[in-house]
Order: sequence, then structure tokens, then C-alpha cells
Amino acid sequence: MDRKTLKQHILQKQSYLCVGLDTDLDRIPPFLLNNEDPIFEFNKGIIDSTRDLCVAYKPNVAFYECYGEKGWKSLRKTIDYIGSDHFVIADAKRGDIGNTSKRYAKAFFEDLKADALTVAPYMGSDSVKPFLEYENHWVILLALTSNAGSKDFQFETDINDTTLYQKVLTVSKEWGSIDNMMYVIGATHPTHLSEIRQIIPDHFLLIPGVGAQGGDIQAISKNGLNDDVGLLINSSRSIIYASSKKDFADAARTRALALQGEMQSILGKHSY
Amino acid sequence: MDRKTLKQHILQKQSYLCVGLDTDLDRIPPFLLNNEDPIFEFNKGIIDSTRDLCVAYKPNVAFYECYGEKGWKSLRKTIDYIGSDHFVIADAKRGDIGNTSKRYAKAFFEDLKADALTVAPYMGSDSVKPFLEYENHWVILLALTSNAGSKDFQFETDINDTTLYQKVLTVSKEWGSIDNMMYVIGATHPTHLSEIRQIIPDHFLLIPGVGAQGGDIQAISKNGLNDDVGLLINSSRSIIYASSKKDFADAARTRALALQGEMQSILGKHSY
Repeated sequence: MDRKTLKQHILQKQSYLCVGLDTDLDRIPPFLLNNEDPIFEFNKGIIDSTRDLCVAYKPNVAFYECYGEKGWKSLRKTIDYIGSDHFVIADAKRGDIGNTSKRYAKAFFEDLKADALTVAPYMGSDSVKPFLEYENHWVILLALTSNAGSKDFQFETDINDTTLYQKVLTVSKEWGSIDNMMYVIGATHPTHLSEIRQIIPDHFLLIPGVGAQGGDIQAISKNGLNDDVGLLINSSRSIIYASSKKDFADAARTRALALQGEMQSILGKHSY
Repeated sequence: MDRKTLKQHILQKQSYLCVGLDTDLDRIPPFLLNNEDPIFEFNKGIIDSTRDLCVAYKPNVAFYECYGEKGWKSLRKTIDYIGSDHFVIADAKRGDIGNTSKRYAKAFFEDLKADALTVAPYMGSDSVKPFLEYENHWVILLALTSNAGSKDFQFETDINDTTLYQKVLTVSKEWGSIDNMMYVIGATHPTHLSEIRQIIPDHFLLIPGVGAQGGDIQAISKNGLNDDVGLLINSSRSIIYASSKKDFADAARTRALALQGEMQSILGKHSY
């Protein structure tokens, strides 16, 4: 999916919501466990009930991979079921030397047909560039993550007081363009969004950490919106586990609707 | 596998060789493509011909993942076939927020039964610690990688002239111990090994980049050996693609034997 289409979807739906599919057999409603593929059945319920409220889905690959071949099949079925009207982010945090990243690109862009892949920056340019060779596909590079461990290295400063995550933004934005790169900026760091927008005013940002991790949509939007809207705010657990009973899909819809409503009200205050 | 056993294997075999299984359908001998599972058949040939010459195998997960469920099955069969007498490193460069890394740990340590997993440090402590909860299993953390892109961020220096990779070593060594953590140090940086050994004198190091990427065993061993030997030197392409014909397994053995011989001569000069 290209940037123009993504923006169109956001404006049509008045939503920049991404629903995270961190589907966990220990947390889905127990009645689903009798199905042949409970992960897919659960995702189907969530997707059916949120499709009109979000522009993106983000399967968290670890939750599929931990079931081996079977999990991989559930992931493939899920991505197929989502279809081409949503932006599909494989949240896999991959990245390796060039000839290996090329294989990960094949896995996620050719075989699984995701639109975007989250990638870790530590190994530098040649670990990222193979992903950028696919037209209308996206690298979403980790910059400032939502977890406590983000403080271990991402805020390391050099003699010019530039932090590592700022350096990652400054250096990596030259590898691609606003048409094939986005950045992960955790919702738990809203105060840093203004200086981040000075470095990358025009890129889309994927913002995880709203909901279970405590991020706040208003604060993020205030500092993060740009001319393209430029934000995809992800919520996983707060939506998909809103209920652990038969009404899980309805409860997910209610939660997604609340988030979409908040986004609609924010978008209404701007002239898109 | 625990550290003591790994050291025993190294001394018995007079080898600290790790054979990298970056098995690529575009590069394996064409006659194997008629098999139902050519990747596994190729690996079987390589493993049978090198088993006595190496202490570890390192399947590069991207090369399996790019074939989806089928590739995952080839990976599982390969790890099963290697068995418990070798140290099995799943080279997957994973790492995510805690609840997600936990799932990757389940995938590689419980489901696939690898001994070790390569992990990226960018997301910090809580992205690494879930892997350390498995007894006799190992995190092999990226510190200084072998690729050109290693220069993009890993040499970033703070006001004390400490580089990012040094900071990664210093901070992360407190998360685990020499019994559950190793580090990736690319063979293309042998001159940095002395200062690295000052920070982590007792840890095992996984050294990729010998062979196709140009690293040199003598230089690495000179600066990298410790009381446990403390090195696993990996070669992938130079061994497994030594011949693209029917004799691929014999040619791999010849190349592995040369590397093992070099290691035996180096070990002979030390008192282990």
C-alpha cells in the first residue's frame, strides 16, 4: 500500500488506529480452543468487528512463531483474511547482514504478503536496505521503543548531546524516503515527539504502547500529527482482550470505537 | 548445553568451529532439488560430513523462514538431526518487549529446542531477560557485528569515548552470567578483540564472518582466546558451498578440516 492510499483510508475512516494481533492461546476466550485453528478463529472475530474502525493490523509474529509451522499457518491465514484494504504490519523486529535481510524480506513481503515489517537498526544500513527494494512496501524502523529497556541504550548521548535514537533517525532517513520508511516511537515517550518531528517532519510513525502500556492518544497526536496525519497508533491487548468471554469481538469493537472516536475528534480540529 | 560441556567438546575435538547452515535453494547442488525437502537433505549431507570437526551448528533462520511453514519444518528437522551432542545456535536476531521476547524464547528454546539464540540489544534489558530464564540455554547478544553497517551506530561514542558496542557489553553483562550469555563479535574486527576481552574476559564469543566475509582465525584467536577457549568461530558459505556438485559434502568436509586443523594447531600452543 502506498502513502497516498494510506492517507485516504485514514481520512475516509477518520481513524489512524492500528489493531495489534498479539493473539495468545492463554488469553483468548476458552470456548475458541475447540476449533482447529483457535488463533485464526479469534483473529477473524476481531477483524470482522473492527475492520471499519481501523486502517491497519499488526500481527505480532512471536505469538505465531512460538507454535512453529501451525502458528505460521495461522499468521498466513490471518494476513490473507485481512486483505488488501488494510495496511498489514508484520511486527517481527528483524534485521541481519544484507544477504540475510534479503531472505527476511522474501519471507514477509513475498511469501506472507505483508505491507510493512518492523526492523531493528543496530546492524546499520546494509541490514535495512534489502527491505527497501520492494515498491510500496515499508520498513518500520525501531527508533524509540515503548518498553522500560528503551532507556538502556536509546538515550545514550554523544559529545553533541545527540541521543542514539536521534542518530538512528538522522542517519537512516537517508536510506529510504517517506514512501518506504516509517519509525516506531513508543507512546510512552510523548514529550519527545516534538523534537522527533523536527528530525523527521514528514514520515509516518507507528506508535505502540497505547492501552496496556499506558500511552495517551491526545498527547501523542498533539505533538505527532503532520500534513499526512502521519501517525498509526497501535493498541493490542486493550482491544483484543477487552473481554475473555463469548462477547470478545463486540467488546473489542466497543474499545476500538472509543479510540476511533477520539481520533475523529482530534482530526476534526485540523484541516485535512 | 552448559558451559563445561561445551568446553569439553572443544577440547575433545580440538575445534571451536561452528558451521553456519545458511541453506539457500538457489545455491545448493541442483540434483538435490528433486527431493521432497531439499534444504533438509542438503543439511543432512553437511552435518554428516562435518559432525566430528565442529562443536556447533548455526542455522540462519531467515533462510528457512522465507519458505514459510515448509521452511520451518526443514529447520525443525535439521535441529532434531543435529541432536544433543552439538551446540545449536538459532541465528534469528530476535528481541522485543518482555511479553513478546517470552514468546520468542518459547519458539526457539521449547518448540525448536535450540541451545542458543542470537538477540539484538537495541530494546534493552527487558527484551533480553526472558531468554535468560531457561537453564542451560543462551542468549548470544549482538555487540560488534561483521557487516559494513556495523559502523553506522555501533561505534557511536559518548563523552567518555565509550562506543555503543562497549556500552552494550558493559551494561548487558550484568543481566546474565558467563553461563547464559555470549556475544557476537564479527571476525572483521579482530583488532577490537583485546579491548573487548578487557570488558568481558570470561564470556564465550560467537565470531561470524570468517570465510566469505574475510575474517582471519589466527588474528581472532590471538586476541580472543580465554581460559575456557571462549570462542566459537563460525563459517557458513565457505564450508557449505565449497562445491555445488555431487561432492558438496566431501568438499565441505575438506574445508571444515582445514579450519579445524588450524584451530588444533592454535590450541596446541596453549595449555588447556
